[in-house]
Amino acid sequence: MIRAMAALQRGAPLVQIEYEHPVLRSQEIEIAVSYCGVCHSDLSMIENEWGMTHYPLVAGHEIVGIVVSLGRGATRHKIGDRVGLGWFSESCMSCLYCMSGDHNLCLTHAQTIVNRNGGFATHVSCHEAWALPLPSSLAASTAGPLFCAGITVFNPLLQLNVSPIHKVGVIGLGGLGHIAIQFLNKWGCEVTAFTRSPEKESDLKKLGAHAVIDTHNPAHYKRLSKSLDFIISTVNAQLDWKMYLSCLAPKGKLHLVGAILNPIPVEPMALIDRQRTVSGSPLGSPANCQRMLDFCARHSISPITEEYPLSKVNNALERLKSGNVRYRAVLKNDLAI
Amino acid sequence: MIRAMAALQRGAPLVQIEYEHPVLRSQEIEIAVSYCGVCHSDLSMIENEWGMTHYPLVAGHEIVGIVVSLGRGATRHKIGDRVGLGWFSESCMSCLYCMSGDHNLCLTHAQTIVNRNGGFATHVSCHEAWALPLPSSLAASTAGPLFCAGITVFNPLLQLNVSPIHKVGVIGLGGLGHIAIQFLNKWGCEVTAFTRSPEKESDLKKLGAHAVIDTHNPAHYKRLSKSLDFIISTVNAQLDWKMYLSCLAPKGKLHLVGAILNPIPVEPMALIDRQRTVSGSPLGSPANCQRMLDFCARHSISPITEEYPLSKVNNALERLKSGNVRYRAVLKNDLAI
Repeated sequence: MIRAMAALQRGAPLVQIEYEHPVLRSQEIEIAVSYCGVCHSDLSMIENEWGMTHYPLVAGHEIVGIVVSLGRGATRHKIGDRVGLGWFSESCMSCLYCMSGDHNLCLTHAQTIVNRNGGFATHVSCHEAWALPLPSSLAASTAGPLFCAGITVFNPLLQLNVSPIHKVGVIGLGGLGHIAIQFLNKWGCEVTAFTRSPEKESDLKKLGAHAVIDTHNPAHYKRLSKSLDFIISTVNAQLDWKMYLSCLAPKGKLHLVGAILNPIPVEPMALIDRQRTVSGSPLGSPANCQRMLDFCARHSISPITEEYPLSKVNNALERLKSGNVRYRAVLKNDLAI
Repeated sequence: MIRAMAALQRGAPLVQIEYEHPVLRSQEIEIAVSYCGVCHSDLSMIENEWGMTHYPLVAGHEIVGIVVSLGRGATRHKIGDRVGLGWFSESCMSCLYCMSGDHNLCLTHAQTIVNRNGGFATHVSCHEAWALPLPSSLAASTAGPLFCAGITVFNPLLQLNVSPIHKVGVIGLGGLGHIAIQFLNKWGCEVTAFTRSPEKESDLKKLGAHAVIDTHNPAHYKRLSKSLDFIISTVNAQLDWKMYLSCLAPKGKLHLVGAILNPIPVEPMALIDRQRTVSGSPLGSPANCQRMLDFCARHSISPITEEYPLSKVNNALERLKSGNVRYRAVLKNDLAI
């Protein structure tokens, strides 16, 4: 039996449940979970903020573990391999997008915690293509968040052709932002961090920010007028988008990865006058996830985490709700003992 | 003396005025105007909709004429050359953007009818770089609109890497839209035209649209769900942007070139889920304007125009206001006679 920490209904603390190991389809594999990160999207799903939760819900989609079972047609991994799994757990492998290497844009993909059991569990299964081999130099205990938070902020650097000659900005210093700053520093860019918590300045600089903007101080923004080539917003709140657009240089791009549910107001003339862009993207393909892992290994990039036993997941969720996690909670699977 | 049709105050009919020929700066040239298109931006400036009009205003920025005078340092043209001039009449030639070939993004450019006298006149002057030689096969009488309407819809094809394998949409069938459809057809794309005037269908198909969508019929949009790679909006009105975003395929781009003054609502999740983009751009550089002219010559593309004598500019403006121009009014200079 698989043991898991599940939400039985909206708002209730997670409780331990058990269920059968699934029968693996041909190209599926099963992973024994070692560690699983706690993403804000887990909280949104647990609380059914997006209206697509079915209870009981086993959340968790920043998974590192060991391959323990292979479907009869699964050939990419061996039993015992150390792999990671993120938000997507399956794609059709045959549509135009999958066949172009854009599996994350597959119109019929499966999501690890949507109508499936995720990684707050002893085991999780997925299509073999979405399990990525973890480079040996990356620690299992901290690598989990790379598979959602990490790839979400890495993939845009590829998709939008962010270049080492660019001046870039990162909005938000949470699970995503603190990884984005590390990536962009090693990418060779000049990195400005936007934060409403100026007390984080020394942390931000340690992560690789060259400048820190206190978002409560409009004079700070003015200094940046028309100067940034790329801004990535990792937050899920409405901000002063007009201000951020004004910070973009000609051809500058504002890229959204934080799940904001309501429309944001965009001034067409702010786009037209300077050839600016507003865009978004969902995670990344397996190939680009592999490229990210290589980049992390080469540059010793890793998420900064707080570790909790999986059995104490409710403590981690409370801390996430309070906004105090520095900078990603990770659960160590203790249900398997 | 230069003779011109000028707006002396907001809302008043244009009247003939005269003023001295300017003293040309080193790299400026003077053009004797043969023809000048009437763009909606002329109307916006005449009516001071953008708050940057100084009266008397000589509008007109879709100019074709003959070089008649050269500043002492102007070497790119000869007296007697046939050239065109659009919205931009000068850029600094030395900033990062000018030096990168993006002169249209110069932060200190001059605009032909902003604090300058434009082309509703016998003569107009500009920096020599912004006057483009007109290929011999293009008729002076219809080429003027290429220098604003044309380059505004051509430049995005270059900037956004629109490809002949793309399915594209054009919103609006006015001065810009009717040229965009011609460009995109010859660009090799599958072209869908969006119009609120379905009676234009046969015109649209003659211009090169493969399909026509009646924007009053929601079923038409549904047919296009997630199918278009690129949509260019040439209108300056608020539309159902959510609907248009839903028509974009993964990696699809909605590009705005119509001057909409109020913010438009953009749903971040519609961008994030499918890696979509909303963008805008202003006209194009001299180099890309030259490329457009070559493309027009090779493919026999030309604006469809209604000709008026410059002295009757008020008739053309009335017709523009009524929305009945098919598809661009052009003024023939009769003040020089």
